[in-house]
Amino acid sequence: MTQETNTLSIDELSALVVKIFTHAGMSDQQAQATAKVIVSGERDGCKSHGIYRIEGCLRTIAAGKVEPRAEPELTDDRSAVLRVDAKGAFSPAAFALGAPVLAERARELGVATLVINSCTHFSALWPEIETLTDMGLAALAICPSYASVAPHGGKEPLLGTNPLAFGWPRPAKHPYVFDFATSIAARGEIELHRRAGTQIPEGWAMDVNGEPTIDPEEALAGAMLPFGAHKGSAISTMIELLSGVMIGDMTSPEALENLGNTTLSPHHGELIIAFSPEKFSAGRPGNPFDRAETLFDAILGQGARLPSQRRFAMRDKTMREGVTLTSDEMQSLQSFLS
Amino acid sequence: MTQETNTLSIDELSALVVKIFTHAGMSDQQAQATAKVIVSGERDGCKSHGIYRIEGCLRTIAAGKVEPRAEPELTDDRSAVLRVDAKGAFSPAAFALGAPVLAERARELGVATLVINSCTHFSALWPEIETLTDMGLAALAICPSYASVAPHGGKEPLLGTNPLAFGWPRPAKHPYVFDFATSIAARGEIELHRRAGTQIPEGWAMDVNGEPTIDPEEALAGAMLPFGAHKGSAISTMIELLSGVMIGDMTSPEALENLGNTTLSPHHGELIIAFSPEKFSAGRPGNPFDRAETLFDAILGQGARLPSQRRFAMRDKTMREGVTLTSDEMQSLQSFLS
Repeated sequence: MTQETNTLSIDELSALVVKIFTHAGMSDQQAQATAKVIVSGERDGCKSHGIYRIEGCLRTIAAGKVEPRAEPELTDDRSAVLRVDAKGAFSPAAFALGAPVLAERARELGVATLVINSCTHFSALWPEIETLTDMGLAALAICPSYASVAPHGGKEPLLGTNPLAFGWPRPAKHPYVFDFATSIAARGEIELHRRAGTQIPEGWAMDVNGEPTIDPEEALAGAMLPFGAHKGSAISTMIELLSGVMIGDMTSPEALENLGNTTLSPHHGELIIAFSPEKFSAGRPGNPFDRAETLFDAILGQGARLPSQRRFAMRDKTMREGVTLTSDEMQSLQSFLS
Repeated sequence: MTQETNTLSIDELSALVVKIFTHAGMSDQQAQATAKVIVSGERDGCKSHGIYRIEGCLRTIAAGKVEPRAEPELTDDRSAVLRVDAKGAFSPAAFALGAPVLAERARELGVATLVINSCTHFSALWPEIETLTDMGLAALAICPSYASVAPHGGKEPLLGTNPLAFGWPRPAKHPYVFDFATSIAARGEIELHRRAGTQIPEGWAMDVNGEPTIDPEEALAGAMLPFGAHKGSAISTMIELLSGVMIGDMTSPEALENLGNTTLSPHHGELIIAFSPEKFSAGRPGNPFDRAETLFDAILGQGARLPSQRRFAMRDKTMREGVTLTSDEMQSLQSFLS
């Protein structure tokens, strides 16, 4: 295999990932939606949320812990709570079904929420956030994962890495978007250290005895720490309450108990809140999109960065030049088709 | 003055604070609502949000930077966005007007928001959160303050201390509530160090040159740091966007420019989001309030604490025994009436 064949256009990579998922038994709807998120990760240089995730998806399918052909179903009672039952499938198809209705309802009521129930989650939240910022909405998304983080002051895994993602639309620019784990590090980052045989930084995790560790194996067997001490721990608990308990779906400890281990994609729900800046700012002085740019300019003007800038720079590059994969990565992808 | 006279019942302290505010020119509506929040802080042992705040309120009134007699006005278009124009007064009376309608709308639509515009803020958000948890709702409240925190990677004040508060109702128990600054420390904490002549911990702030400092004067003149590095900085930016830009009210840099200094209460808006757990969990397995208790038990069971536990313990004590003030504090309160 020559070096040239390892550079794929986004469309070529998408077709390959869809083929892999279809080969593994996913319906076309599920394969298309899931591949889109994974290709977005690879496109943006997020290795821990790119094609690296495919193996886990396939293992989760093989283990019977996800419904690869389920059709998500939307329930809409005309309130500010829209609900999509993912029926055990991966979340992207459920989100794709609910997003346009969520956007419409947010424009009508000012704020609206999308509850995804009974989904198997596996990836980043920013692709969902960007779907909504592309429609001119501000959006916030949260979900539990599985128990792997000790609450501040504790020493046993209870909370999930519980991501918090937010976006604000910037006309004619990449949106303001952040998406991070409420643990100090994402579990995928520790997993990458394990694969690379490297140590993790101090302060990321505790071993099974509640002692600090820099060994990724010990960290994965023990407990990660929340970011920001008691404040991050409180935010992570809020995420369990709002996007686990409140929406009638599994909390992180329940998701772990249901799954039995932490090597497969967890089953839980998700909560997405969409805001219409036009509706919220109506009748008030100033254009919210212009005023946001003033704030961003002030951040950049003192040498600080906006979140996701590196990701967007990589996106601009790969959209022009394609995604370059190593020979090992290409062989891995091909092996999924055998 | 004997030691006995320094212990006041909650009602006695409330009456005294209302008298001070009325004496300073506040309307009865404004004095009652503002006093309630300040007395709640003192009752709960939050010295930085208790009677300590009165002096700042009076200075803000004297400087003409707050409307002490404004009547808040509610606008309701039957959407999920309720709006109260505080008309330049302190925020508590505006919140008191909007809260019952917010609760009703959240029960109807599942989620609803209260925008407070043009208020002068001065205190903690947890009294507002607890008003909503007392009505059986989960709630989230955010607001800007004035530019005093550098964004992560920067070195000039731009963001506010931007509090984030959340609550979850616990039937027959004190609610799950957190309320913290998205700076590492609250500005009031640094101010208390300045008054006490003590140093602040390392990592809280930078001086005017962007160098680390443990001097509270230098910290107040320089910039505080966000909690949780880039993650806390991103959350603080989100708070500027949602509860400043989006609602058509001042961001923290605008509030500072408007005020001209950081010794008075800032003028800005606030965003409160209320969720109905009953509505969100309808048709799903399990009772959300019971399931939340399982989560809290698991946190407490491994030796970690729930936020606000110390505050609630103090509340239980002062509700029984009254609030004990030092002679200096009593004299200070009396001096406000002269």
